Amino acid sequence: MLNQDSVAATGVAARCRAAKAAQTRLAVATTEQKNALLHRIAARLEGDCAAVVEANQRDVAAAADAGLSSALVDRLRLDEKRLRALAASVREVVALPDPVGLVESLWTRPNGLQVGKMRIPLGVIAIIFESRPNVVIDAAILCLKSGNAAILKGGKEAAHTNAALAAVLSSALVDAGLPSEAVTLLTDRGEVGELLHQTETVDLVIPRGGEGLVRYVTENSRIPVVQHYKGVCHVFVDATADLEMASRIVVNAKAQRPGTCNAAETLLVHAEVAERFLPEVARALAAARVTLVGCERTRAVLPEVTPATEADWSTEYLDLVLSVRVVDDLEAALAHISRYGSSHTEAIVTRDYQNAHAFIARVPSSAVLVNASTRFNDGGELGLGAEIGISTSKLHAFGPMGLRELTTTKFIVYGQGQVRA
Amino acid sequence: MLNQDSVAATGVAARCRAAKAAQTRLAVATTEQKNALLHRIAARLEGDCAAVVEANQRDVAAAADAGLSSALVDRLRLDEKRLRALAASVREVVALPDPVGLVESLWTRPNGLQVGKMRIPLGVIAIIFESRPNVVIDAAILCLKSGNAAILKGGKEAAHTNAALAAVLSSALVDAGLPSEAVTLLTDRGEVGELLHQTETVDLVIPRGGEGLVRYVTENSRIPVVQHYKGVCHVFVDATADLEMASRIVVNAKAQRPGTCNAAETLLVHAEVAERFLPEVARALAAARVTLVGCERTRAVLPEVTPATEADWSTEYLDLVLSVRVVDDLEAALAHISRYGSSHTEAIVTRDYQNAHAFIARVPSSAVLVNASTRFNDGGELGLGAEIGISTSKLHAFGPMGLRELTTTKFIVYGQGQVRA
Repeated sequence: MLNQDSVAATGVAARCRAAKAAQTRLAVATTEQKNALLHRIAARLEGDCAAVVEANQRDVAAAADAGLSSALVDRLRLDEKRLRALAASVREVVALPDPVGLVESLWTRPNGLQVGKMRIPLGVIAIIFESRPNVVIDAAILCLKSGNAAILKGGKEAAHTNAALAAVLSSALVDAGLPSEAVTLLTDRGEVGELLHQTETVDLVIPRGGEGLVRYVTENSRIPVVQHYKGVCHVFVDATADLEMASRIVVNAKAQRPGTCNAAETLLVHAEVAERFLPEVARALAAARVTLVGCERTRAVLPEVTPATEADWSTEYLDLVLSVRVVDDLEAALAHISRYGSSHTEAIVTRDYQNAHAFIARVPSSAVLVNASTRFNDGGELGLGAEIGISTSKLHAFGPMGLRELTTTKFIVYGQGQVRA
Repeated sequence: MLNQDSVAATGVAARCRAAKAAQTRLAVATTEQKNALLHRIAARLEGDCAAVVEANQRDVAAAADAGLSSALVDRLRLDEKRLRALAASVREVVALPDPVGLVESLWTRPNGLQVGKMRIPLGVIAIIFESRPNVVIDAAILCLKSGNAAILKGGKEAAHTNAALAAVLSSALVDAGLPSEAVTLLTDRGEVGELLHQTETVDLVIPRGGEGLVRYVTENSRIPVVQHYKGVCHVFVDATADLEMASRIVVNAKAQRPGTCNAAETLLVHAEVAERFLPEVARALAAARVTLVGCERTRAVLPEVTPATEADWSTEYLDLVLSVRVVDDLEAALAHISRYGSSHTEAIVTRDYQNAHAFIARVPSSAVLVNASTRFNDGGELGLGAEIGISTSKLHAFGPMGLRELTTTKFIVYGQGQVRA
């Protein structure tokens, strides 16, 4: 804690420079050294458990006093059981391959030069997040394993917990013989504006939180930002769909965890199967306590459904509500997704080879699925390992970002004295 | 020309929306269709040669009247011979592989889901450039071949030439049955500010020009920008270097084309070989009309050399001037590059295996070379084919950007009814 307190006195620019200097040491750390660091972090999360839990209880008590909803207070809570789970997730990252130094291929030019692209860390990554304090650990370990320094700025409601977790990271870095400035916690909200202008030292900003936070960061940052805006995800049930499978996928995509960005918000149904499918899926959705709003053609089959407004088609409910629209064909479904979608996640349920192929080829979303739930658009589920977030902007990364997406590539060239003619 | 004139009347936002609509058609064009388009563009560059040359002569005459330097007037000139060369370069892009649709691997998850990453176009790319009008063609064909729409804004000194070249592109698009809005030329400087705020429709901005232009675009854009700042490139001659090879590489890196970003600006010489190497390389550089500025240790060997100031170490001369510094060892060379370099291109000349390895591993520049000239940091020379520019920022692309760097990836998932547990 002493260390964090003493550096907190110096300015944002100086702390970012210190992070950059620390990163040059981390960039050349071996995978063994970085894994040893992660093991120390996991051990300290278990060993220093009492200090973190105590700090967390202060935040939780303050949040309850301030009248935060019980859902928000629960997101804030970090008890011994959750800390053990956090330690376990750190050890999972140990098991992931280190992307740094990877050269996927070397090719030889006609003049004999051997050329390749080597993965290197991005540098210094700033993560600005709200409420859930476990982001301190999740984000830091992904940055550290990929050779990056992390600048973290959390919400004030988790201030004590964040500081206790940062102290865990700091001690583990020192124990591992690595510079503690590789993880820097900013605690003052007023520092964010200054942070977003440190173009000389910070390479990437990742805002993790609501649309307001993402928009604020995007509009005020001079540093590149990887954004995650809303997920208005679609399931299109084609004329040839296995309707029992379609119903299962729709219910899972909507109701398995409705508050997530990859949950479905709109169901598109091919007109040819609307009369058969809609009553069936409505029953299954009702059993999962999902409320429907629908277009006129939906209401012709299901008169009890509330009429959808134009605004519904672009709404991310994050709740047990689903908008339903009957469309003439695949083209109409693609047009709807293009007009109202958020390029996040879209699924088709079909038995038609041609339509599956067209959907995969033509939908420009971060994940496009055939006969599977939209809920699979997640780093863990897709096989990337832990993720630092999902990008809905196309530059650098599109979709879930794992360790690899926290790196870039440089060209490496092995010559024997070649000069350019 | 009619087409360009009539749309010029509508606003920037509307033209960007039209470009985005055109891009959705281009995104699903086959490689065959896109190559046919490029062949038409090449044929028209030769066939409509007279119209372009005439327009260019107006720009050249105006530039000469305005008192532009003969070098600048020459950069502006587009005669029949240069147009034939431009047509040939278009045909070279036909021969490059189309990155769109490429899925490098498909993996299977434990639940049977088949997951892959498919390359897709970025979308709409804005290129803001100065003077050389051939950028209209170079940039447009790389965007089109990779399925992107292009919004082009050139300098006013090439206004007539740019309009004539845009007309060539527009006619070729119509001939090929593709929407002419896939290439849009903005002609009014006042439109740039508005363009840089079209976050809903434009996916990437590439400024091509001097530091002032790049800085203006970076500071004013709400859209992601790929930057190319200066190239302060280094050659480090190690103690074990083959000095004859080192001399050849230094002369080539500095003098073969001193006005380019990958030309060397600073020579670092290991103290152990300074006395032998400096007189030798100074003679070779003098023969190539290169002027030297140097540190005190350099001047101890070469007293006639002008003393270097602190500012020299971070100066991109873009001219026949080279700064020279004697350093104690590899560590000192790395520290100098880290402090003064621009992360562009650095080379080591050495016979030492360990130092070659350390230099490659530890220098975080866009290209790092062993025993080869810095001048090889170029899309064509590295084997990427034509390049749209070199990125010195690490996000998305670092180093030369070819067709592949004008695409992103989406996740594709083939299921058999899987839902998330």
